[in-house]
Amino acid sequence: MPNALPVLVGGSIAIDNVKTPSAEANNLLGGSASYASLAASYFTDPVHLVGVIGNDYPPEHLAMLQQHGVTLDGVDRSEGDSFTWSGEYFQNMNDRTTHHVAVNVLEDWKVSLGKDLAACPVVVLANMAPGNQLEMLEQCTAPNRFVLADTMDLWIEIARDSLEEVMTKIDLLLINETEAREYTGTTNLVQAGALLRAKGPRYVVIKLGEFGSVLFGPPEMNHGLFRCGAFPLHEVADPTGAGDTFLGALAGYLASLGSTDYSFSQIRDGVIRGTVMASFTCENFSTRRIENLGEGDLLRRLEIFREMSCW
Amino acid sequence: MPNALPVLVGGSIAIDNVKTPSAEANNLLGGSASYASLAASYFTDPVHLVGVIGNDYPPEHLAMLQQHGVTLDGVDRSEGDSFTWSGEYFQNMNDRTTHHVAVNVLEDWKVSLGKDLAACPVVVLANMAPGNQLEMLEQCTAPNRFVLADTMDLWIEIARDSLEEVMTKIDLLLINETEAREYTGTTNLVQAGALLRAKGPRYVVIKLGEFGSVLFGPPEMNHGLFRCGAFPLHEVADPTGAGDTFLGALAGYLASLGSTDYSFSQIRDGVIRGTVMASFTCENFSTRRIENLGEGDLLRRLEIFREMSCW
Repeated sequence: MPNALPVLVGGSIAIDNVKTPSAEANNLLGGSASYASLAASYFTDPVHLVGVIGNDYPPEHLAMLQQHGVTLDGVDRSEGDSFTWSGEYFQNMNDRTTHHVAVNVLEDWKVSLGKDLAACPVVVLANMAPGNQLEMLEQCTAPNRFVLADTMDLWIEIARDSLEEVMTKIDLLLINETEAREYTGTTNLVQAGALLRAKGPRYVVIKLGEFGSVLFGPPEMNHGLFRCGAFPLHEVADPTGAGDTFLGALAGYLASLGSTDYSFSQIRDGVIRGTVMASFTCENFSTRRIENLGEGDLLRRLEIFREMSCW
Repeated sequence: MPNALPVLVGGSIAIDNVKTPSAEANNLLGGSASYASLAASYFTDPVHLVGVIGNDYPPEHLAMLQQHGVTLDGVDRSEGDSFTWSGEYFQNMNDRTTHHVAVNVLEDWKVSLGKDLAACPVVVLANMAPGNQLEMLEQCTAPNRFVLADTMDLWIEIARDSLEEVMTKIDLLLINETEAREYTGTTNLVQAGALLRAKGPRYVVIKLGEFGSVLFGPPEMNHGLFRCGAFPLHEVADPTGAGDTFLGALAGYLASLGSTDYSFSQIRDGVIRGTVMASFTCENFSTRRIENLGEGDLLRRLEIFREMSCW
């Protein structure tokens, strides 16, 4: 990656406790920005992580991220307890229940970027309060920056106005199917994609879980659409963070291209990489699988995925 | 299609009454075999329809099928009333409620094939009672025939033993997602595909509605899998018969190849054509859209679909 650009990834950094029908694990690395930054690190260098942790945050998680080229200068350390999420997945691995969320240090967090970080040309607003996403964006200084953002149902419900403002300032929105339908009030995905694009972002990716995703772009490009499947898995161990991984890999891939003037095919190729990287995340708890990807693992799976999807 | 083979399509021939959130239509051409035979007629010739109708069956529906090269020699005419289905779709066009089913002439129907029809090398067992599917199969005489079958939740519940027998005698099963999960008792699609193949058919296609389908084949071919999207539609007028259309177009395409020794890529190409043909069915009530496909309509949409799906 001779001209690879750095990526700035802001979002939550959490301690996760996860239960599935077959296993359980606690004190895991969690949070939208953790997954996204680690995933991005497979494509570009450096990746700057922005978030806040408490005084109880497991140092081994931070060390692992650093080993992957993720910098921690943008991570605030607060006196409180870390943001914690405890949840459980049931038989079909799509339904999940949140047993407990402790917002803790996230409550009063204000994003503050140093000069170097603020100048990053590729910016990821991973899932966090739209207020924090706006704070972060306002500090960004790169003239031709490309901004990718994720959101969730909670923000559509309680922070819709801020979210609408975020929408006017980003280049690509990642959102899941249910949220897209809820946000736009339509059940037709093609219409939902168009309505979301009308709010601001040039590109919208609607995630369909095990059924893949749809990329929407300007109508004059590739009929305005790319339909991506999901990499089929014989077993899903823990889908937590799959969407965040997708976002990070997509952003990291784009950054690796060396300029932010992306074509539809480049965004599409990023979506494909996001999809494949997310499939690895689902194969073990937390980031365990994507911490240990071998050189050829991603390339091999990309090739298999192409053979399974193209004709 | 110089060497195109004839196709035999058995199943229900119905009168449908359909209501959607925006419109309503009655006395429509319906039934699994009607859609499947019409769809097949775009690929091969002749298509022999097998089923039963009552003395009240609208003659214009039969005339339309004949104009498309569908023969009616295998259609029994009974003294009773025709099989009738009345249903309603709601806002998201995926949920539907059956208001009324009148089995009528289907109740006592026994399949009886003439010698010519029995010799057909490509056989479609569209959705009907597994008992009727077995009756039809027992009369088939072509030595290297390729048999495709569809089924539905009702038969999994009330005729499981017969369905299991059907499974041992077919080459390709088409089944929808919910039914596949119910039939195999697993929530993982990849596992469901493998479990269904273990029951007999070399190929299994699991339909995912608006999310497309997955083709499963022998593990040594293309990783055992092809993941097909659905053609994205801005509006779905009436999805009734989309699965039957898919099956008919797949069978018709295979028959057009001139021999029944199909490769994985040929089955895959049939799945793609089934997908695109089914998208036309969804654009109007009943078979209205696929009755009037122009020469280039299918080819043009196939090309757009490839551009939207491949990289």
